[in-house]
Amino acid sequence: MKRIESAKNQKVKDWKKLHTKKERTKTNTFLIEGEHLVEEALKTPGVVKEIMVRDEADFPAALDESVARYILSDDAFSAIAETETPQAVAAVCRMPESGPFQYEKLLLADAVQDPGNLGTIIRTADAAGIDAVVIGQGTVDPYNAKTLRSAQGSHFHIPILKRELSELIEELKGKSVPVYGTALQDAVPFREAEPSQSFALLIGNEGSGVDPALLAQTDQNLYVPIYGKAESLNVAAAAAVLLYHLHG
Amino acid sequence: MKRIESAKNQKVKDWKKLHTKKERTKTNTFLIEGEHLVEEALKTPGVVKEIMVRDEADFPAALDESVARYILSDDAFSAIAETETPQAVAAVCRMPESGPFQYEKLLLADAVQDPGNLGTIIRTADAAGIDAVVIGQGTVDPYNAKTLRSAQGSHFHIPILKRELSELIEELKGKSVPVYGTALQDAVPFREAEPSQSFALLIGNEGSGVDPALLAQTDQNLYVPIYGKAESLNVAAAAAVLLYHLHG
Repeated sequence: MKRIESAKNQKVKDWKKLHTKKERTKTNTFLIEGEHLVEEALKTPGVVKEIMVRDEADFPAALDESVARYILSDDAFSAIAETETPQAVAAVCRMPESGPFQYEKLLLADAVQDPGNLGTIIRTADAAGIDAVVIGQGTVDPYNAKTLRSAQGSHFHIPILKRELSELIEELKGKSVPVYGTALQDAVPFREAEPSQSFALLIGNEGSGVDPALLAQTDQNLYVPIYGKAESLNVAAAAAVLLYHLHG
Repeated sequence: MKRIESAKNQKVKDWKKLHTKKERTKTNTFLIEGEHLVEEALKTPGVVKEIMVRDEADFPAALDESVARYILSDDAFSAIAETETPQAVAAVCRMPESGPFQYEKLLLADAVQDPGNLGTIIRTADAAGIDAVVIGQGTVDPYNAKTLRSAQGSHFHIPILKRELSELIEELKGKSVPVYGTALQDAVPFREAEPSQSFALLIGNEGSGVDPALLAQTDQNLYVPIYGKAESLNVAAAAAVLLYHLHG
């Protein structure tokens, strides 16, 4: 256990760097804040690398000996914190390694832009029994603070993988997994799709939707009917409706 | 048409005050920013009271003569702006007056706290064909900037009313409108509820859910099953699943 007083300490500087995607990618680690997220992370052995508490706060009970412990002054802790709500605990986590690709239910995210939306989508996918979320090009980094916060720990429940979506869709079709896109045109109402044990749902960008080239690859494209005057649904709301329908 | 140069102009100060709930309630007006929201507001005559554009920007084409027009310097416009993304148009809108209470499909929000969630919920309610959203005590002000932004104009599509929810639920039961609460305990899976032409769905706080006293008043309480390891769904995601189910 080590105590750090200064916000200019090298360790503090290193942790702060994890606010950037570049550093997260380089180190294969990410920073989480708050009791709930740290608790969720600690449930899987080997995920948490370092743990930091503010001043007089207690370390979580579930810590094993492999986790390096730091007590930070108020100043030092504030320097690494990204959230506005003051937290008392933070941790550096290792990004999970991706094993062999064998999943029955997949959610594919093409160019989802808003970090909060992506987090809610990951949380909803977890709740709806999805086996893995696959992030395509142009989607916001799933390990940024806002996404981690809105996913409420689901990062530690289901794998989040990065793949070239067009290749993955071809692969899935080769295995006869039905791939559903989401689109407003050339699509059928979602209730026409049969719930099944195995499927992939492809969702897209908040403004422009799914890349038309990907939509052309799917087995079928679905839309959520609009009964009122809204132009469209929020992507996370649409994902929730679709995932629960496809689960059956 | 009037040009305003200084951020210290009294008009600018008055508009800035609309960032607070207190001033919005006092004046029965609220501030919107951005082309899309202003466009949606202008579709209903009498809603927009004043319109402000930044510097060289054009006024929207759909303006009638009753709307006061202002051209603001960059400085003055920035002073009234709440969003980070720079916008070129803003407007002061009148809050809609509530007419007689005759709605078939209602969404009741008890103590929803997050402005973005509430906005997404209003947008989803609009999309799912809900006739009115009713805001109970403890719910965040629906006219704050974040809620307006995430509702994407649905404030101008369906009425948003403030009512004492326990009284309203009694009233609805008197009219034989089925009232569904949402809860994790003493509740049935949502698919057991029959879709119908007329219903009220009651959703609650992000952390603590719906007030137990209100849950005790409903006809039935529903839950969205969790198939994975997530503890719960985001309230806006759950609302989307439930509203689309109840619509049928």
